[in-house]
Amino acid sequence: MVARVRRALPTRVSGELRVALGDDSAILRPKRGNEWAISTDALIEGMHFLPETHPPNAVGYKAIARATSDLGAMGARPRFFFLNLALPSRRTGRWLDGCLRGMARAARRYGLTLAGGDTSRSKAITLNLTVLGEIPLGLAVLRSGARTGDWIFATGKLGAAELGLEIMMRGLSRQAGWRKFLRAQLYPEPPVELGLWLAGNRLASAMMDLSDGLSTDLARLCSASGVGARISAVRMPVVGMSESIQRLGLQPIKLALHGGEDYQLLFTVPRGLTSRIPARRTGVQITRIGEIVPGRGVELATEDGRVVHVERRGWDHFARHR
Amino acid sequence: MVARVRRALPTRVSGELRVALGDDSAILRPKRGNEWAISTDALIEGMHFLPETHPPNAVGYKAIARATSDLGAMGARPRFFFLNLALPSRRTGRWLDGCLRGMARAARRYGLTLAGGDTSRSKAITLNLTVLGEIPLGLAVLRSGARTGDWIFATGKLGAAELGLEIMMRGLSRQAGWRKFLRAQLYPEPPVELGLWLAGNRLASAMMDLSDGLSTDLARLCSASGVGARISAVRMPVVGMSESIQRLGLQPIKLALHGGEDYQLLFTVPRGLTSRIPARRTGVQITRIGEIVPGRGVELATEDGRVVHVERRGWDHFARHR
Repeated sequence: MVARVRRALPTRVSGELRVALGDDSAILRPKRGNEWAISTDALIEGMHFLPETHPPNAVGYKAIARATSDLGAMGARPRFFFLNLALPSRRTGRWLDGCLRGMARAARRYGLTLAGGDTSRSKAITLNLTVLGEIPLGLAVLRSGARTGDWIFATGKLGAAELGLEIMMRGLSRQAGWRKFLRAQLYPEPPVELGLWLAGNRLASAMMDLSDGLSTDLARLCSASGVGARISAVRMPVVGMSESIQRLGLQPIKLALHGGEDYQLLFTVPRGLTSRIPARRTGVQITRIGEIVPGRGVELATEDGRVVHVERRGWDHFARHR
Repeated sequence: MVARVRRALPTRVSGELRVALGDDSAILRPKRGNEWAISTDALIEGMHFLPETHPPNAVGYKAIARATSDLGAMGARPRFFFLNLALPSRRTGRWLDGCLRGMARAARRYGLTLAGGDTSRSKAITLNLTVLGEIPLGLAVLRSGARTGDWIFATGKLGAAELGLEIMMRGLSRQAGWRKFLRAQLYPEPPVELGLWLAGNRLASAMMDLSDGLSTDLARLCSASGVGARISAVRMPVVGMSESIQRLGLQPIKLALHGGEDYQLLFTVPRGLTSRIPARRTGVQITRIGEIVPGRGVELATEDGRVVHVERRGWDHFARHR
């Protein structure tokens, strides 16, 4: 199984990666003046995906994309990854091949090289990723840097991945016009280059990726920074097709507030630098959604002019996929 | 669950670890002139341990010890670890507390600080560890450096952990005299300081840890180095109590050749440096078990003077614990 993994994925020993696959550890040294951003991430059957619903290709792709998203959200350039793969016997054939193809596609797209890992058996499919990104010393953008008066931005359409999941779970995948939401769920595209640009130009005071839903993630950013946030419903980059969505019993604003797995960027910019933030960069939509305010927690200015407290209602491992 | 993990385990941001828990990635930079050794390791219920047989404390301890062993086998000083913990709901109470206590004990013992990770739900207990060790540039000892004429050494008693597992599986844990084998199985002590000493003094030409059994691991070292090995049955540091063990239908030499999970060191030393290898160092027994020879594969000189080929019969995830 290990040999198949190595054949399927990009591997190359050179430069910062001195020793990789086949020894007890990999040996990695950042370029002079750089440091490593390191993040780990688990993708577990029944928890983060359903094998009967999510194609193996998408599971592999998404495992890499999710982990890479954490690097982009620091402003780090993705470089290496370690894969610990645990599979039931019945998944070691076509399922594994499909999964590895999706992984290889995402790895090439984001410039990641396999540096190590292992395979083993398990009752449930488990993909554990450790990713390393390189970042010039002192440029990493943390969650804790937001200050009162900073503007809050988000990339892409919020809630698209959640809508894609709803469509899949209801067996509506074949309906025209909903492909892009399926794609957002199965093949998310974290805007890593944008994260690098924001960090490299010191434009963002705080940054994180949107993995568990805006209501949860923005609350985390606020808590880390010791501030509050006020966001605006009319500004929110919600998904389109609102009539079809309402027929499903869903509301675009709720999807945007609480939908998980978008892997878009959430970042804050000091007021004096906001003129340098374009509405779109390298194909990625950037939307101002609100402002950092004193206090704590997240408030929403609704379409009818009220201001309501936003509860954390994003991704919860206890409640979902049961 | 995340909060309980953080409270239970050693955490501290300083020096090489600039940003840790609670951001998208950790930011780590090695001291000047050093590089990072990085290894990942999974410990999975039903595969690597049995929850009804292995106490939670031992599972946590062993997860850290196993991963740390990979660092010591490069000559790297353990520094940081990332923990991705996936548990069924029924394991989040006392089981988790016990597991974290064992982890904390091992982390303190080997000098490891928690730098990141996550928790999630899963059908099977899965502990994924990523460990980082620091090593001066160029000192890492690889598997590929063994040359013809080098002597082969192993630490500790080989097969002790496997014997401990047999004792547990047969329900004989309470028998006097077998405590040390149980300890070898439940609380292995990889000789990390010895690995650092060998690497720091450039004494070892090749080194790895014995995780899957000597017959498998020595064959790997030989294959990586493009050489063969001849080991000697009379030299082998087998476990004692041979009569009691034979009554169980086990042979000490077979345990030593094929028993897994000892987490001892296997290393080779150029002939001219062998006089500097003591029989014991900081409490760790060191035994010369054979010599690197031209060719490929592993040969054993038996007690009755024959030379036989040693097949790889170590740890196999397909055959065990079913």
